[in-house]
Amino acid sequence: MPKAITRKSEDFDRWYTDTVRRAELADYAPVRGCMVIRPYGYALWERIQRALDDMLKRTGHENMYFPLLIPESYLLKEAEHVKGFAPEVAWVTQGGQKELEERLAIRPTSETIICSMFADWIHSYRDLPVLINQWANVMRWEKRTRLFLRTSEFLWQEAHTFHETHAQAAAEVDTGLECYRELAEEWLAIPVIPGRKTESEKFAGAEYTLSIEAMMSDGWALQSGTSHHLGQNFTRAYGISFSDRENVLQHPFQTSWGLSTRIIGGLIMAHGDDAGLVMPPRVAPIQVVVVPVTRSNDPEGAAAVDEACRRIAAEAGDVRLRVDRREGIRPGEKYAHWELRGVPLRLTVGARDLATGQVTVTRRVDGESWAEPLDGVAARLPALLDEVQARIRSRAEGLLRDRSVEVRSLDELREAFAERPVFANAPFCERPACEEAVTSAAHALTIRVLRRDRSGEVGRCLACGEASSEVALIARAY
Amino acid sequence: MPKAITRKSEDFDRWYTDTVRRAELADYAPVRGCMVIRPYGYALWERIQRALDDMLKRTGHENMYFPLLIPESYLLKEAEHVKGFAPEVAWVTQGGQKELEERLAIRPTSETIICSMFADWIHSYRDLPVLINQWANVMRWEKRTRLFLRTSEFLWQEAHTFHETHAQAAAEVDTGLECYRELAEEWLAIPVIPGRKTESEKFAGAEYTLSIEAMMSDGWALQSGTSHHLGQNFTRAYGISFSDRENVLQHPFQTSWGLSTRIIGGLIMAHGDDAGLVMPPRVAPIQVVVVPVTRSNDPEGAAAVDEACRRIAAEAGDVRLRVDRREGIRPGEKYAHWELRGVPLRLTVGARDLATGQVTVTRRVDGESWAEPLDGVAARLPALLDEVQARIRSRAEGLLRDRSVEVRSLDELREAFAERPVFANAPFCERPACEEAVTSAAHALTIRVLRRDRSGEVGRCLACGEASSEVALIARAY
Repeated sequence: MPKAITRKSEDFDRWYTDTVRRAELADYAPVRGCMVIRPYGYALWERIQRALDDMLKRTGHENMYFPLLIPESYLLKEAEHVKGFAPEVAWVTQGGQKELEERLAIRPTSETIICSMFADWIHSYRDLPVLINQWANVMRWEKRTRLFLRTSEFLWQEAHTFHETHAQAAAEVDTGLECYRELAEEWLAIPVIPGRKTESEKFAGAEYTLSIEAMMSDGWALQSGTSHHLGQNFTRAYGISFSDRENVLQHPFQTSWGLSTRIIGGLIMAHGDDAGLVMPPRVAPIQVVVVPVTRSNDPEGAAAVDEACRRIAAEAGDVRLRVDRREGIRPGEKYAHWELRGVPLRLTVGARDLATGQVTVTRRVDGESWAEPLDGVAARLPALLDEVQARIRSRAEGLLRDRSVEVRSLDELREAFAERPVFANAPFCERPACEEAVTSAAHALTIRVLRRDRSGEVGRCLACGEASSEVALIARAY
Repeated sequence: MPKAITRKSEDFDRWYTDTVRRAELADYAPVRGCMVIRPYGYALWERIQRALDDMLKRTGHENMYFPLLIPESYLLKEAEHVKGFAPEVAWVTQGGQKELEERLAIRPTSETIICSMFADWIHSYRDLPVLINQWANVMRWEKRTRLFLRTSEFLWQEAHTFHETHAQAAAEVDTGLECYRELAEEWLAIPVIPGRKTESEKFAGAEYTLSIEAMMSDGWALQSGTSHHLGQNFTRAYGISFSDRENVLQHPFQTSWGLSTRIIGGLIMAHGDDAGLVMPPRVAPIQVVVVPVTRSNDPEGAAAVDEACRRIAAEAGDVRLRVDRREGIRPGEKYAHWELRGVPLRLTVGARDLATGQVTVTRRVDGESWAEPLDGVAARLPALLDEVQARIRSRAEGLLRDRSVEVRSLDELREAFAERPVFANAPFCERPACEEAVTSAAHALTIRVLRRDRSGEVGRCLACGEASSEVALIARAY
């Protein structure tokens, strides 16, 4: 039987890497900072893509594809943007046998190339809004790498939109964030806190940035999707203009929003346990595994077991079900194999249970087992899976509730983090000096967001004591 | 009304570029050799992807994702391969602020990085076969560019597989080619000729290469998908080995096969006409467009037209249907708009027709129009679309039949191409000197493939007159 993975409580970081590699989601590649996404991990990404792509289309977005390489001169046009991204760009300097006259950036994000194209395509208010999206690989040269969470190359979706008015763009920024909230909560079973980034944490070139923040099971935060209001910063720099309804030339207002393979890291860290992954059924590549248990000295029993497995598979309909018929592997080893991979439900089909017309169902999230009649068990799977989905989400919600605290001063903040990482909520005035005071109050603190759901709450800033109308979410973050 | 596109008969190349750009499939990007795929073109690619991805999964392949960048030392390991690809590689030499110690190739194809990973993952015959696939962007630094047909960056699928025996790998090479044939013929309505490439035209590093060749409507050929038997060339070079069933260490046999956005160029050139695109319904992003025709002095008629359009849209079910309600655009302009985009069926809904309970159906492929009762017209759309699909295919088959000739000598070959480009079939002995004689017999001739369906046919080589058992397909090619 293969060695168990590192226990989560013992060493969270090693547990994470063990889980990703041993569950065959991904592995390190022999290229600095890059990873290989393996079939099980890619199947999970395909599920996430399909869910989000459906939402994007439902909200009126169309997919396009822009070039991987961006000439340096294009990147230079928006000053804040280039300052933010230049340090992490990979540069192509040779094409074929020749030195290039201008070096080309591998896209770290695509605002610049997209603006340069839409400068030709947008002329009138009738051309607006533009609502497009791209599924692509991007590259940001990272010093430290963690599978899914931080890799030099990653896969993502980047939506880019242009609008007549500031307010319409603001509504679109909200649409983007709402797609991400729906994906995180309804599909990945991860409760999130939406909010606005502080000035120091916003996207390079944005007017403001919204984000959803999720709590991992060690109490750390993961920024899981961001949506940016770009104002007219890029459209001005790239010379995009349209004649408005009064026939006056204007720069359109722009947004961009992205969600990446990083979210897979979030799913692992939000739900996983000592035995490995816990997959929410709605995105699980395999939702149900059927393990036949037979004895070599009972051929009649084996035939009945085989017959029952076939019947369950035939009746499972749209449920993503696999029968584990591998030979020479003991049932216990199979159980561990699928537990490591987080398959939501296991059906154990043995001759003794079958004699009374039953099979055993085991729920991955809490290890509960019970007998179900073989008759109709396949038809009951969707309802059982829905219940698992709800349990995983409610457990994550419970964790978030238990590890959230309200603090009113820097002392209370320090105290809150004395024992373990938490999500601390505090009135905050938004002054840079106060942000500095907050983040240096204890090791590795960051202001994740100014909470959307509590915006306007009147209080006194935890750092300076002056009047505040925002509540900051303060946490350690991946 | 916008200017008409260049006529196909007048200038095929300009017609092609006009069609791609004016139908908003794609456009040139301000990056050397690269293109932007616009929403209509990308929606078409998504249809093609979905069809092929379903076939790949049905035949047991799983998707993965490998890094974009490949260290130069990895590329150098298989001698033939590097000789073939090195001249067209784009090189990353700087990452972040630093000069790299080893330059990194943007993948021109992924055999090398994939082999380097599977060297760690394949140990025993129990690990075989490996059947994986990747959807990705690749880059080959091209001197001359044509939208979809030849761009420095393109999107594709690359399947990579490892097998215990040469024969199993050969069967897999056939599986790949059969997926491509099915995609081309059943989905894209393009008849293809499958065959084997000559030694001089095979993939760099392959033992042999199979291809499907399609006839464009100007009589030129387009290589539309290739499938390679790599023997043990790469597995030996990259040190991949497994203990076989006799516990002897062996190198696995390998295949790879790819199909790219190039196929969109093939679809355009195979079916398009003077009015623009002709989309086969099975992959058409929009299958049916409904154009309401109303008069401003007939509000009652307009209400009836609007009601009928709503009813058709509501009853259309899975049919991809759009009602063109744009205001301020005359019907004739709308007709041209959708003809340019190749939408298979148009329903014209006008008050006069409605008075007798009818709408007008117009078929893009041949311009035929007829009246259909409004009652149940939506339910008849799937059958009408099937008929369109069959007509487009049969027209393409007719062209291929009409422009194929049998030749028995170089003189007959020259004569066959004197008037216009054709597909010439000729007995061929496979000697390099004879290939040279064939390709220089007239301008720009190439041996596309040795036809699979006529392999073993006894004859005398058209060049040297010696005994031959293969029939070469000779054509000009994109």
